[in-house]
Amino acid sequence: MADQDAQTPVGIEPPALSVLRWAEPPEGPAVVLLDQTRLPAEEAELVCADVPALVRAIRTLAVRGAPLLGIAGGYGVALAAARGEDVARAAELLEQARPTAVNLGYGARRVARAYEEAAGSGPGPEAAAVALAEARALHREDAEASGRMAQYGLELLAELLPGGGGHRLLTHCNTGALVSGGAGTAFAVALRAYRKGSLRHLWVDETRPLLQGARLTAYEAGRNGMPYSLLTDSAAGSLFAAGEVDAVIIGADRIAADGSVANKVGSYPLAVLAKYHHVPFVVVAPTTTVDLGTVDGTSIVVEQRSATEVTEFTSKPGARGGGEGGGTVVAPPGTKAYNPAFDITPPELVTAIVTEEGVISPVTGVGLAELCARSSQVTIS
Amino acid sequence: MADQDAQTPVGIEPPALSVLRWAEPPEGPAVVLLDQTRLPAEEAELVCADVPALVRAIRTLAVRGAPLLGIAGGYGVALAAARGEDVARAAELLEQARPTAVNLGYGARRVARAYEEAAGSGPGPEAAAVALAEARALHREDAEASGRMAQYGLELLAELLPGGGGHRLLTHCNTGALVSGGAGTAFAVALRAYRKGSLRHLWVDETRPLLQGARLTAYEAGRNGMPYSLLTDSAAGSLFAAGEVDAVIIGADRIAADGSVANKVGSYPLAVLAKYHHVPFVVVAPTTTVDLGTVDGTSIVVEQRSATEVTEFTSKPGARGGGEGGGTVVAPPGTKAYNPAFDITPPELVTAIVTEEGVISPVTGVGLAELCARSSQVTIS
Repeated sequence: MADQDAQTPVGIEPPALSVLRWAEPPEGPAVVLLDQTRLPAEEAELVCADVPALVRAIRTLAVRGAPLLGIAGGYGVALAAARGEDVARAAELLEQARPTAVNLGYGARRVARAYEEAAGSGPGPEAAAVALAEARALHREDAEASGRMAQYGLELLAELLPGGGGHRLLTHCNTGALVSGGAGTAFAVALRAYRKGSLRHLWVDETRPLLQGARLTAYEAGRNGMPYSLLTDSAAGSLFAAGEVDAVIIGADRIAADGSVANKVGSYPLAVLAKYHHVPFVVVAPTTTVDLGTVDGTSIVVEQRSATEVTEFTSKPGARGGGEGGGTVVAPPGTKAYNPAFDITPPELVTAIVTEEGVISPVTGVGLAELCARSSQVTIS
Repeated sequence: MADQDAQTPVGIEPPALSVLRWAEPPEGPAVVLLDQTRLPAEEAELVCADVPALVRAIRTLAVRGAPLLGIAGGYGVALAAARGEDVARAAELLEQARPTAVNLGYGARRVARAYEEAAGSGPGPEAAAVALAEARALHREDAEASGRMAQYGLELLAELLPGGGGHRLLTHCNTGALVSGGAGTAFAVALRAYRKGSLRHLWVDETRPLLQGARLTAYEAGRNGMPYSLLTDSAAGSLFAAGEVDAVIIGADRIAADGSVANKVGSYPLAVLAKYHHVPFVVVAPTTTVDLGTVDGTSIVVEQRSATEVTEFTSKPGARGGGEGGGTVVAPPGTKAYNPAFDITPPELVTAIVTEEGVISPVTGVGLAELCARSSQVTIS
């Protein structure tokens, strides 16, 4: 694993991270995942040769991240089709693996629908091939969306931060190749900045309670040879005070119609700090993240997660701990925790939202609706 | 250990926590500590029968917290005197146990000076008794200072938050009986509020990287039957946004002459959030924390601590991990960390400073100097 001192020279890219791939026979048919619960200690592949194995991988967080879950759901349905199994039932099982993951259901249903249309003239290898083609299309679309977000984001940073010397970007949680069919969302912008020679430093919030920043973003930054430092979430304040942050760049779990951004808990304090220090706060997310049916931030219900994520500590969320207990106990027995999964940043604190369809700044409901109308993403209920 | 559901009824206090006590023969002479590295899992006493044992206890953080270290240093010198050992050498060893802990040197030197004055007419049991009396005086003064801070702090909260229903206070790090000869600083205010029936809820930041909030403040809150919840540091933003915080109340490591407050990293982001949400931000610290020789916040050198505190995780700081390695690794090998020990909150973000000599609000250099001039604390170089 790359030490950030041993940076990959700009222009020489490390082999792309194989986060999720389809395996043909004789290795497959199978969905092969990079087991994210074993990162950063080891890069191990997990071969899911049937739908129940993939459902287990989703449940244990071996595969995670909204766009990537959609792709996994799609390939899972293609896997059921290739095995001659009940495709509708497979889509249902996959969707239920993590009920709150909207993209998972989207991917599974989209591929199931393509299969059903093709199977109208009879199920079999041809319909299975159509399902696989649809899963591949979803994968490719997501990778392309990443690329466009990275480019729009980089252009925005050049406008917002015209000075030379490169950008010092602060990010939170994990938004890179590990959550996406491509290079990700916010992380993809930082990575492109690095490859174009305009990233001076990436500040990586560890992102308590599940430490996606420490475990995953630091891993991706190191693997790409980027200059980065890890910090506890609350040390970000000192960086702002010292003038060491040029922009905050984060992803989004959901964006309401007014531009309110729901993202990993800890995003809102960064937005307030950024405002106080006159630093741009940039959100990068595909238009599929925008939920025009949610009027504003107050309409977003914030999930409260298990106290054990805070009262215990685990290096492997999902396997044990991470809400399931079994970690090292760090608080007295009986301690209750306030543990919201995400927080809401109102549009007035967001400098810009970058999507694959373009950038809006300032953030307004009208601008957001226009971007979404432009989206070529296949709509499916 | 008390679950906060099983609250101690107001008015019925649990037995005082014996954090540090002097033991006479036959148990002693010894300094007996509550081993803080074993909290919250167990309440175990650590008997230090000689100075090297006490130095080890200080180094491993079995005893910690600025005022308590001063008291430990004082009793350590008294212990050397009782054992007929070289008192000046003992004071030196104790002071060097943690070189940056100003109070430790203060306590050791103060008791050594009392001993030396008494020993002018010949060393022996009488001079040793004078040393012990001086250590006890230091201990008592600190406990009294806690009591006065608690009372001034409670009166301030009543002024700042005149509504009924009790206060919802947010605190950071550990500032209770575990750091003090009495009930502590900020925590002492919350505890007195609870005992007077005016604490509605105590929000406890876990306080990364060493988790003093989770391990120690939650323990003290639970032990006293106070209503509390633990949260990750960055979840505080959501609490402010939801209007669930009436005041922030924290301690201080050092206060500069202009009222800038150096405290555990994570304090400054709370001050910015408090300002943005129009919530009072209150600092509680004895006048000995004020360093009139430091002009302002920019003159305070912020110690950068070991990366392993962030890249590894340990439930027992000091024993292993906590800067010494040996914890569970959570970040890729070679990861660098930005890990400042504390941050600086400028006076314009501090609503009030509460000391044992009274309260200043607004915070000004002149007001601070006046408070310090009133202090009865024995001055010693």
